[in-house]
Amino acid sequence: MASLQVTQEQERITSPPMASLLCPPYKAVMYDQYGEPDKVLRLADVGPVELGARDVCVKMLAAPINPSDINSIEGVYPNKPTVPGAVGGIEGVGQVQAVGPAVTASLSPGDWVIAFPHTAMGTWQTYAVKPQELWHKVRNDVPMEYAATVTVNPLSALVLLQCFTKLNPGDTIVQNGATSIVGQCVIQLAKAQGIRTINIIRDRPGSEQAKHRLTQLGAHLVFTESQLRVKNVKSLLGTLPEPALGFDCVGGNAASLTMRVLRKGGTMVTYGGMSKEHVNVSTSSFIFKDLSFKGFWLWNWVNSDKVVDCKKMIDYLLDLVKEGKLTYQTELTPFRDFGLALNKAQGKLGAQPKQVVSFWDKAKL
Amino acid sequence: MASLQVTQEQERITSPPMASLLCPPYKAVMYDQYGEPDKVLRLADVGPVELGARDVCVKMLAAPINPSDINSIEGVYPNKPTVPGAVGGIEGVGQVQAVGPAVTASLSPGDWVIAFPHTAMGTWQTYAVKPQELWHKVRNDVPMEYAATVTVNPLSALVLLQCFTKLNPGDTIVQNGATSIVGQCVIQLAKAQGIRTINIIRDRPGSEQAKHRLTQLGAHLVFTESQLRVKNVKSLLGTLPEPALGFDCVGGNAASLTMRVLRKGGTMVTYGGMSKEHVNVSTSSFIFKDLSFKGFWLWNWVNSDKVVDCKKMIDYLLDLVKEGKLTYQTELTPFRDFGLALNKAQGKLGAQPKQVVSFWDKAKL
Repeated sequence: MASLQVTQEQERITSPPMASLLCPPYKAVMYDQYGEPDKVLRLADVGPVELGARDVCVKMLAAPINPSDINSIEGVYPNKPTVPGAVGGIEGVGQVQAVGPAVTASLSPGDWVIAFPHTAMGTWQTYAVKPQELWHKVRNDVPMEYAATVTVNPLSALVLLQCFTKLNPGDTIVQNGATSIVGQCVIQLAKAQGIRTINIIRDRPGSEQAKHRLTQLGAHLVFTESQLRVKNVKSLLGTLPEPALGFDCVGGNAASLTMRVLRKGGTMVTYGGMSKEHVNVSTSSFIFKDLSFKGFWLWNWVNSDKVVDCKKMIDYLLDLVKEGKLTYQTELTPFRDFGLALNKAQGKLGAQPKQVVSFWDKAKL
Repeated sequence: MASLQVTQEQERITSPPMASLLCPPYKAVMYDQYGEPDKVLRLADVGPVELGARDVCVKMLAAPINPSDINSIEGVYPNKPTVPGAVGGIEGVGQVQAVGPAVTASLSPGDWVIAFPHTAMGTWQTYAVKPQELWHKVRNDVPMEYAATVTVNPLSALVLLQCFTKLNPGDTIVQNGATSIVGQCVIQLAKAQGIRTINIIRDRPGSEQAKHRLTQLGAHLVFTESQLRVKNVKSLLGTLPEPALGFDCVGGNAASLTMRVLRKGGTMVTYGGMSKEHVNVSTSSFIFKDLSFKGFWLWNWVNSDKVVDCKKMIDYLLDLVKEGKLTYQTELTPFRDFGLALNKAQGKLGAQPKQVVSFWDKAKL
C-alpha cells in the first residue's frame, strides 16, 4: 500500500511546455503480476512519451474503480491485461493535450474524450497516449464523474434495454438487483423512453427507503423478493402489461422470481451473478412458456461490431445526464487518496458510492 | 377397458355405397372427461357424417399413440381438447374417400393424406371428416406407419436442426436423450445434411449396444453421461469443431453436460424434460461463455406461421424415408388390440417400440 501513497510532492507534476510531440511524464497505477490489488499495485513514473503520428495525448481527468477493474488485477476476469507493466482502469475521461500530425479525428486540445472502446485499457494514469480511434470525444458540460463512468454501467443499462427485444412506449420490463447503478440507470432510461419497470430488491433493513428512492427515480413498481412469493405473481402487476424482457444480475432465487414475472415467450438476460448461485429453469418454462435466456457481457458486446452504435449511445446517455434525466451517486476522490478509494471500492469500508479518482486538483485544470 | 375391446364383429363395418356427400358411419376412440386413459376412453359409433362443401372424408389407415396423446387425455397437457366428445390422437395417415363440392385442394379418392396441422385433433377413428386445409397430401409409397408418425418426432428433429442456428455441412451439434426417436431422427437428418452429431446417452445396462445402434444410424460420437465427467470435455471431441447448437430433452445433469460441450456463443434448445429436473445454468455460462437457452414445443411452432414450411419439411422427411435414409422402430397393432397398444405406449409392458394403430385389415384396403 505504501507504494500507492501519492504525496503532495509527487502530485505537483509541472507540465513542461509541450515539446512538439511529447506527452509529459506522468504517474500511473500499475501492476506486474495478478493478485490482491493493495499488494500488487504500484505507483510508477512514466515518460515522457513520444506521440506517434496518429496518437493523441490526453490529460486524464477522472477514472472510476469498478469491480471488473479489481477482478482484472486479481487475474480472475476472462480478459487478462498483459503483465508485467499493466495499467489499471478500463474507463475514464480526459482532456486532449496534443495530437499527432496525422490525426484525422476532429480532436483539439481542451476537448473532452473518453477511453472507448475498452480495449483501450489503462486509465489510471495522469496522462495517456493512445491511437486516435481509442478516444471518443464527448460533451464537456456534464460533471466529469459522469463522463468518467458512462461506458460501463449506464451503457450496459442502455444495451440491455435496446438490444435484446424491441420495446415500445407503454411496454414493461422486469429486473432484479434494481438498486445497483445499472438497475438505477435501467429505471431512468426506461422512463425516458416511456417504458415501465417492475423492480425486485432484496429483503433487508432499509428496503422501504430503497423502494422510495427507486420510485423517485421513476420505478413503476418495486417489490422485495419475499413480496413476490405468491401463487399468482401476475396479480401483483395490476393493469401493467406482462413484461417481455427481464434483466438478472443476481442468479438463484432472484432470477427465478424475475422469470416468473415474464410473459409467455419472454426473454431474460443475465448480466451478473451477485448471489453466486446458478439460474434454475424448469423444462416447462422452456417448452410451454417458451422463455428464452441469454447472457450479456459488455466487453463481448463492444468488441464486436457495435462500436459505432455504442458511441451514439454514449452521447445519448450524456445528453440525458445534462438534462437531469440520468443520475447516480459517485464519490470523487483525489488521486492522492487512491488507496482509500481502492478500499472503499472493494467494500472494505461498508457500502459506498462508486469511487471515481480525480487526477488533478481542480485549480490546476 | 372393456369398452375399448373392438370385437371382430364391430370391426367388420361394411362401407355402404357412398351416398353423395355422406362419410360412412365409423368407430372413434373418445373421452368425455380427463383422466387415466384406460378409465376414460370409450369406443363410440359415430355417423354417418354429412360432408360440408369444403370438407374431405378420409378413411384413416393408421395413427400412433404418442406420450402427448396420453397427457392430453389426462388433462395435464397445456393444449386441452374440448370434452365431452373429444377424440384421441393428434397425428395419423388416411386415404381420401370423398371430397366436398367446393374443395379446391388437389385431393382425389385414394390419395394419402396426413392430419396436419395438429389443430386437426382426433385421429383415432376409422373415418374422419375435416376441412380441406387440415389435410396434407403425402406420397403413398412409404410404409404407412412412417406417414402416420412423421408429424411429431421426425418433424421435431428437423425443426431443431433447421430453425435455431444456421448450420452448414461440416458443423457439429450435440444432443442428449439420443436414443429417443427424436434423437435417432436428429442423427440421421444431420447425417443427410453433412452435419456431425455428438450424442449423450444414459449410463445403463446395454449402453454399449445403444452406442453401436446409434453409430450404425450415423452418429459421429456417442458418450454416456459418466464419460463426459472429465475436466476438459473438449479434449473428447478430437478434431470435431465445437458445436454451436445443442438439444436437450432431459434437463438436470444431462442438460449441464450438453451445455458444457457447446462452444462459446452457442445455443441449447430444451424440448423435453425426461429427468423432471431443472436446467441449471451458471451465471458465468451466460456472461462469459455467452450461451443462449431456448425452448421448443412443436405445437407452438406449428400453430404460428410455419405451416407451409412444415408441410415442405414433412415431404422432405418422407422422401428420406423412401430413400432409406430415415428409419425408426414402430409396431403396427390392429385396431382390435387398441387396449394392448395403449398399455404398451404407457410403458406398462416395459420398453416398446412406438405403437401405431392400424384401423383396417390390409386385405380390406
